[in-house]
Amino acid sequence: MATQVIVLNGGSSSGKSGIARCLQAVLPEPWLTVGVDTLIEAMPASLHDTDGGIGFAADGGVSVGSKFQALQAAWIAGVATMAGAGARVIVDEVFLGRAESQLRWEKALVGLDVLWVGVRCEAAVATGRELARGNRILGMAASQAELVHQGVRYDLEVDTSRTESLECARRIAAHLGGDAAGSAPVGG
Amino acid sequence: MATQVIVLNGGSSSGKSGIARCLQAVLPEPWLTVGVDTLIEAMPASLHDTDGGIGFAADGGVSVGSKFQALQAAWIAGVATMAGAGARVIVDEVFLGRAESQLRWEKALVGLDVLWVGVRCEAAVATGRELARGNRILGMAASQAELVHQGVRYDLEVDTSRTESLECARRIAAHLGGDAAGSAPVGG
Amino acid sequence: MATQVIVLNGGSSSGKSGIARCLQAVLPEPWLTVGVDTLIEAMPASLHDTDGGIGFAADGGVSVGSKFQALQAAWIAGVATMAGAGARVIVDEVFLGRAESQLRWEKALVGLDVLWVGVRCEAAVATGRELARGNRILGMAASQAELVHQGVRYDLEVDTSRTESLECARRIAAHLGGDAAGSAPVGG
Amino acid sequence: MATQVIVLNGGSSSGKSGIARCLQAVLPEPWLTVGVDTLIEAMPASLHDTDGGIGFAADGGVSVGSKFQALQAAWIAGVATMAGAGARVIVDEVFLGRAESQLRWEKALVGLDVLWVGVRCEAAVATGRELARGNRILGMAASQAELVHQGVRYDLEVDTSRTESLECARRIAAHLGGDAAGSAPVGG
Repeated sequence: MATQVIVLNGGSSSGKSGIARCLQAVLPEPWLTVGVDTLIEAMPASLHDTDGGIGFAADGGVSVGSKFQALQAAWIAGVATMAGAGARVIVDEVFLGRAESQLRWEKALVGLDVLWVGVRCEAAVATGRELARGNRILGMAASQAELVHQGVRYDLEVDTSRTESLECARRIAAHLGGDAAGSAPVGG
Repeated sequence: MATQVIVLNGGSSSGKSGIARCLQAVLPEPWLTVGVDTLIEAMPASLHDTDGGIGFAADGGVSVGSKFQALQAAWIAGVATMAGAGARVIVDEVFLGRAESQLRWEKALVGLDVLWVGVRCEAAVATGRELARGNRILGMAASQAELVHQGVRYDLEVDTSRTESLECARRIAAHLGGDAAGSAPVGG
Repeated sequence: MATQVIVLNGGSSSGKSGIARCLQAVLPEPWLTVGVDTLIEAMPASLHDTDGGIGFAADGGVSVGSKFQALQAAWIAGVATMAGAGARVIVDEVFLGRAESQLRWEKALVGLDVLWVGVRCEAAVATGRELARGNRILGMAASQAELVHQGVRYDLEVDTSRTESLECARRIAAHLGGDAAGSAPVGG
Repeated sequence: MATQVIVLNGGSSSGKSGIARCLQAVLPEPWLTVGVDTLIEAMPASLHDTDGGIGFAADGGVSVGSKFQALQAAWIAGVATMAGAGARVIVDEVFLGRAESQLRWEKALVGLDVLWVGVRCEAAVATGRELARGNRILGMAASQAELVHQGVRYDLEVDTSRTESLECARRIAAHLGGDAAGSAPVGG
């Protein structure tokens, strides 16, 4: 079965979005990219920095509350439906809950052919890129670099520390091509 | 049953996004806003201005191809799932296909409690706002102002020509409150 | 002498940027638009929310420090040079320092033909537009609506509360046309 | 004399903006960053893709007309004034006119202490980053990678092909520090 969902998991400034756009460019079929940034954008402005919503601390820490999580659960279910209905979907995610975050997606994506990709980037490099983007809140890149991968299982890992987004995308695309016949869900 | 989806349909520069953000601010529960702009953003850059994708002509005309429509159908199904899974959803849409566009959403949203809202704006006013936004392609506002409403049935209509977004949002919110017990789907 | 600089002064969410873009569209010659947002964008991210920089309080209050003011003074001098060198310039400003802010610009623009335009918007309307834009920090519109006009002298005032940006721009353009031969600097 | 202006010249997607933001972060004093993107943003939307304005061809070629050039000349004069008035300025530029573009800046910046920095990036790498950014028009990176450096003289060159923005910024900052006492304008 052909892959229906590519989940890119990595910390802030690890280069997931660039890889996602390169994947959209190199893959022969059209793929949608959605991600936690899409979700935050869709939420009320009032859910930012409030109890129950999502908070960004001055040191780069991120906390999410119950309202955020409820919307996120419904959103994940919706993304799974999109993929099941025929839209190939790249998910650009930050597994702040580590293995538990993966489990949440696995349950939602059950029955779909998913490629789990870890997007790694050394904390020092990601921190430099955080500066280069002009982010006002610094520290997210460093605090998430290792954390989001703990206990998470991947079909493939790429490291953007010294590999360009396009090259990472090509490796993922090659993996898709080669494994198209026999890939099984990580959680299977 | 409480309303689960608010569909705002109107032409470009009619003020739907402003109303959606005001709704998110005035409604007591958190609502997600998604829309055709979200969808376009999620698509590959290569689907812009190509056969099969979405094209924006110099005169403001918009054409969508088969690849766009296939992704859109899956995306609509996903949005319906989000709403069914408990996320209240505001849909910010442009029914270029008029009654047929509404029918597509109605089928996807069947079983959900939907409020259909027409967002009108006089063509001349919308054209002025298109200029004020600094849009490079002019003409979309004028060409869509009437067209997107043809044959579409609403529970409520607002007109932003001389009413602010916040006031429009309040009227929609009032309608939600008052009709909470008895609203029926338009397509019912 | 033909007008070389149009200074638009008004509070946050009063509609200055929309008027500026409409002016650029309706005026026969090309005009540049610069403003305090341009300046903030050009500054280091670290000047946000720090001593010496610019701070945005949770209630919408804005405070600027000495480093901000030093950069601003040099930037104003540069904008004056642009206008003197032949670029027609629309300045999109918020006179937080009221008459003193105007005096600063007057000194920099001495010898140039300037049209001073007050852009008014009722606090309640501007607050609604602040919500409609999805601003996370609310209150700036209300706190600035009256304050920025105190003691400031104008050649022309427009009010966006019930007049569209394009119509406001047309009135300003008409004023330019009619007064082209005889306008004198406010500070003259 | 301390450096007053840092001119970063490089092709599209060569990484100038990231270096500029890192410079703003690592340099002890506040620096403004302005550039050709700032200028285009300030121009009327109607100057895009018209005679006399700036045009972006489907193959990534860029052409500028007489109106664009007139505004640019005045803008450059203004930037020079900002630097002379005490604002340290980083100029993020694309010398489409090669040595002639440099000459234009040299004339405007005469009397100021300028550090000329070439920002190089291999065409293939820059093209990959163009994809990763999701640019709709591809080809600018490749067509500008070599061209903009032809005949241009630098105090320092950095290459982002295999060096991160932050490291490039540190080299530039080190150069500033070391040469602070004795740097002379390239054009001197």
